[in-house]
Amino acid sequence: MTHQPKTPLLDQVKYPADLRKLEDRDLPQLAREVRDEMIDAVSRTGGHLGAGLGVVELTIAIHSVFDTPEDRLIFDVGHQCYPHKILTGRRERIRTLRQEGGLSGFTRRAESEYDPFGAAHSSTSISAGLGMAVAAELSNTDRRVIAVIGDGAMSAGMAYEALNNAGALDARLIVILNDNDMSIAPPTGAMSAYLARLASGRTYMGFRDFGKKLTAYLGEKVDRALTRAVEHARGYVTGGTMFEEMGFYHIGPIDGHSFEHLLPVLRNVRDNAEGPVLIHVVTQKGKGYPPAEAAADKYHGVNKFDVITGAQAKVKPNAPSYTSVFAEALVQEATLDEKIVGITAAMPNGTGLDKLAEVFPARCFDVGIAEQHAVTFAAGLATEGYKPFAAIYSTFLQRAYDQVVHDVAIQGLPVRFPIDRAGFVGADGPTHAGSFDTTFLATLPGFVVMAAADEAELKHMVRTAAAYDEGPISFRYPRGEGVGVEMPARGEILQIGKGRIVREGTKVALLSFGSRLADCLLAAEDLEAAGLSTTVADSRFAKPLDHDLIRQLARHHEMLITVEEGAIGGFGSHVLHFLATEGLLESGLKVRSLTMPDMWMEQAKPEVMNAHAGLDRAGIVSTVFRTLGHGAAVGVAG
Amino acid sequence: MTHQPKTPLLDQVKYPADLRKLEDRDLPQLAREVRDEMIDAVSRTGGHLGAGLGVVELTIAIHSVFDTPEDRLIFDVGHQCYPHKILTGRRERIRTLRQEGGLSGFTRRAESEYDPFGAAHSSTSISAGLGMAVAAELSNTDRRVIAVIGDGAMSAGMAYEALNNAGALDARLIVILNDNDMSIAPPTGAMSAYLARLASGRTYMGFRDFGKKLTAYLGEKVDRALTRAVEHARGYVTGGTMFEEMGFYHIGPIDGHSFEHLLPVLRNVRDNAEGPVLIHVVTQKGKGYPPAEAAADKYHGVNKFDVITGAQAKVKPNAPSYTSVFAEALVQEATLDEKIVGITAAMPNGTGLDKLAEVFPARCFDVGIAEQHAVTFAAGLATEGYKPFAAIYSTFLQRAYDQVVHDVAIQGLPVRFPIDRAGFVGADGPTHAGSFDTTFLATLPGFVVMAAADEAELKHMVRTAAAYDEGPISFRYPRGEGVGVEMPARGEILQIGKGRIVREGTKVALLSFGSRLADCLLAAEDLEAAGLSTTVADSRFAKPLDHDLIRQLARHHEMLITVEEGAIGGFGSHVLHFLATEGLLESGLKVRSLTMPDMWMEQAKPEVMNAHAGLDRAGIVSTVFRTLGHGAAVGVAG
Repeated sequence: MTHQPKTPLLDQVKYPADLRKLEDRDLPQLAREVRDEMIDAVSRTGGHLGAGLGVVELTIAIHSVFDTPEDRLIFDVGHQCYPHKILTGRRERIRTLRQEGGLSGFTRRAESEYDPFGAAHSSTSISAGLGMAVAAELSNTDRRVIAVIGDGAMSAGMAYEALNNAGALDARLIVILNDNDMSIAPPTGAMSAYLARLASGRTYMGFRDFGKKLTAYLGEKVDRALTRAVEHARGYVTGGTMFEEMGFYHIGPIDGHSFEHLLPVLRNVRDNAEGPVLIHVVTQKGKGYPPAEAAADKYHGVNKFDVITGAQAKVKPNAPSYTSVFAEALVQEATLDEKIVGITAAMPNGTGLDKLAEVFPARCFDVGIAEQHAVTFAAGLATEGYKPFAAIYSTFLQRAYDQVVHDVAIQGLPVRFPIDRAGFVGADGPTHAGSFDTTFLATLPGFVVMAAADEAELKHMVRTAAAYDEGPISFRYPRGEGVGVEMPARGEILQIGKGRIVREGTKVALLSFGSRLADCLLAAEDLEAAGLSTTVADSRFAKPLDHDLIRQLARHHEMLITVEEGAIGGFGSHVLHFLATEGLLESGLKVRSLTMPDMWMEQAKPEVMNAHAGLDRAGIVSTVFRTLGHGAAVGVAG
Repeated sequence: MTHQPKTPLLDQVKYPADLRKLEDRDLPQLAREVRDEMIDAVSRTGGHLGAGLGVVELTIAIHSVFDTPEDRLIFDVGHQCYPHKILTGRRERIRTLRQEGGLSGFTRRAESEYDPFGAAHSSTSISAGLGMAVAAELSNTDRRVIAVIGDGAMSAGMAYEALNNAGALDARLIVILNDNDMSIAPPTGAMSAYLARLASGRTYMGFRDFGKKLTAYLGEKVDRALTRAVEHARGYVTGGTMFEEMGFYHIGPIDGHSFEHLLPVLRNVRDNAEGPVLIHVVTQKGKGYPPAEAAADKYHGVNKFDVITGAQAKVKPNAPSYTSVFAEALVQEATLDEKIVGITAAMPNGTGLDKLAEVFPARCFDVGIAEQHAVTFAAGLATEGYKPFAAIYSTFLQRAYDQVVHDVAIQGLPVRFPIDRAGFVGADGPTHAGSFDTTFLATLPGFVVMAAADEAELKHMVRTAAAYDEGPISFRYPRGEGVGVEMPARGEILQIGKGRIVREGTKVALLSFGSRLADCLLAAEDLEAAGLSTTVADSRFAKPLDHDLIRQLARHHEMLITVEEGAIGGFGSHVLHFLATEGLLESGLKVRSLTMPDMWMEQAKPEVMNAHAGLDRAGIVSTVFRTLGHGAAVGVAG
């Protein structure tokens, strides 16, 4: 065990009230200690490092100037909230970050009164803050609301919707735009380029000089229209125009690592601002930790690492990750079919689409944090005969649900949806779980909804989706490694709506959709050992269902259990609906539908979460025994 | 039957190719004839009038200048597409608009090659157009893509996401911003105010003069920085800066009713533009039809009307509309509880929230076409102890699904969701059907999901939602009139998760969720007449389910049918899941789940659609007979 860093000043600061007792001149020292503490903590737990390092001074300055928690401080996304947690009564638990039973890696209302709004998905903070600011006005409360949002998050439509509304409402809202020219990947889009121009010192200085020059030129002859025009020109060059046109008073760019810049500006805004204010703060992601500063991703998300060298622990994989299997299969298909294109919403690395971009840069599009646009952009490409793969995590596809329904499904356009992170995702907790995709997609007429049982199946599904041109098609696969099956040289084209029997039995039928197949097979061994002959089938499709397969399972077994790593309303519901409609439930068949439980499950390792959910080997066996009344035999499941 | 207008020029124009043979000087006459034709058609069918009247010249000019359908023309939302339909081979069917079997009220790919992208929900056109423009580039095709989008639609985040991406991609996309200072309601938000400033002739003229003046002042002394600053100042005053910062070349504002303005600009853009261009066109909604011009809503959506007077046919209601019952109940509760606030996304009239705004203007918020923001803004208000009613149609709530999941449900915040237009909506067709809300909400842990069986129930649910402070709660109700039940002076607080038995029987149980209760009761009469004693229950809740009620129905009946006006995965699926889990399906109970069919149903009257779906009296009876093998008795159902 390495020693923890020495932090004499931080040791006196448990809550922001303690911090406010310090002199301004003490704050740089406090910042150094917070940084050391955070680096040490994340080196032990893994987690989001770069974002937090970038906002240490900003976080201290805000808590120093504002009266948190009475004033509301909202961090967008929450990747950057670790310094905030250290300073708001949670330092003692900071080394439990993202562990089962530990602190969340994001802000969370249930965790602290200093977290007035939970986060994890991007770009929600201005909307939430505006709600709070309006509430303060309605209550005649003299409260400040501060939303800290990154420049990457500004590419999302909901941030714009909120700015647009805030400007019109003229509410007392302080938006701090934390501009580090980074989100997870370097941000894309015109707004990002705009911010970069604003933050460029050269432009700023050039035009400040110009302002003086112009006054010298024109002297007293300046008429009113001219004055206004010059004001606008200056507004533009110092960064005002665009946000000021949206109704915000704009300040900045200012240096987000300098207390001398931050404190007077924040105090001024605190004391004088009446309407919406946007403070443009420039920071450096990974600031103060050389290995992070030097890394391309600024140590956005890291494994445990060595503090001295920055070397991250390598996790030895037993099998390739689903993400990499998807990426390789997509590149393989794209090599053979030039109509295949890829679309990602600011997650080129996470989705594996960076691999496609390496080989076919012109055929891979990173549209920014903009899932809504990503899907309808893909729909537009599909109308012209292209084969778009819109690769969006299950949880983020929720952002584009209407576009999936209205622009893709109703028009029957062949957009392909590879859905990574489907099922439990582990340390990121309930906000990132991929729980609902099967439910919200399989309810749509004409949609083909697949799930991969293993990495070879995923490869088949990539090829199947590439070949299927009749309408929308999706395939879900979990976070993490495959199960280690042999991989085909190329995927096969699966027959739409046809499952497969993986193991034959006579009494119990386990019908799996997706990632739980391996546990079904293990459960079948236990059941067989207990004298229960068990069939295991892989449905492959939630829609269209394999009616023949389901009929066969229902008619020739005493019991049928559907198993899926998803919430109610999805695969199991479609099977039950079919069985009911066909009258197959009236024979005395015992039927059960295993899904994620009806609760928000806290962070833990995915295998632990599946066990809690009763979706693992033991849970499946236990359900069979319970249903068949084999109470005494439950021990076998262990 | 009134005579149709005389249209000698239009009679020669069946397709845009015919239009392109005309001289520029003929186009104003063609515009007059298109306007007459459109007014006559809509006077017979009802539909969207004002939007189309505003773009007659623009539509003609685009088809005249561009090579449609080879060049792609996309109308955002599609309310304004009637002149386009008249000019693209669909004039003969224009008097079937929005009727069963007739033309859609929106653009539709299946209807014409001149509709390259279907619309109905707002703000999708730039994304779709960008997809097409990128496809043209990838294919080395020299094709133009034109997206026509209204100023109201610009308040939606996805329009911003698309602009942001288009600017970065530098694609050859032409966006025509049709600025009529109107969407359905007057638009709100800072962007709208910005556009209004741009479109103000006074400002425009003033600054044009200024440009000349400045040049005169400075002569040769102008240095480069100064020139650029002046360019920016001019860009701003002529409307450039904000869109130019997003990477668009900006032109306008220009007069959208003047061919002399439109034709040269469009030709110039067609021949010379290489990157994204935004043309800001100012039009007048309802243009050329005095009754529309004079009306506050510019005849946005009308019933059949008298062409001479503009007087609209009044439909005599048999009962108050669900919308008005909701609005009155909400005002009543808001009068008694000052924490109640209302939020609408640009639909104050459609949702009935205008009634709340009349009485409590400070407690009602129209956030613009911005459902995502609306929901998270409501979540922010809820954190501060307010009781937000976020009133969003079922189909538009899809736009805010992630916000419902991530910002409301995971945090367990008590946001109230009144869901109007739940179920079939009639003339607006599949894009507006409220089909999926129960499915996508009831799958979320901790959500309370209700549906109103009649207008009195709706009143109870408004009060129940107002009183319920434990977490998110929704209640759905259909478009149109109530069923005519007696209304209580004030709603009652319903017990959460408790349904009610409306009629007692012994053999068949009909378990209704929401609007189909009346038909269940009628069906019960038919069944009783056929000797089948029938229980009818109103579940009220899809979540939490009334377990006692369901157990009772399952145990004491031979058959149980769930009935809902929604897609698969919702109420019926939850009931089946419960029955399976409880082992209640193993007794031989005959169970069926009636839902909307698994297809996109075309426009027709809601009662016709329910009949097609088998969700009406006859359909329910027929399902019972079929299931029980009463084949010969089906005739009773007629």
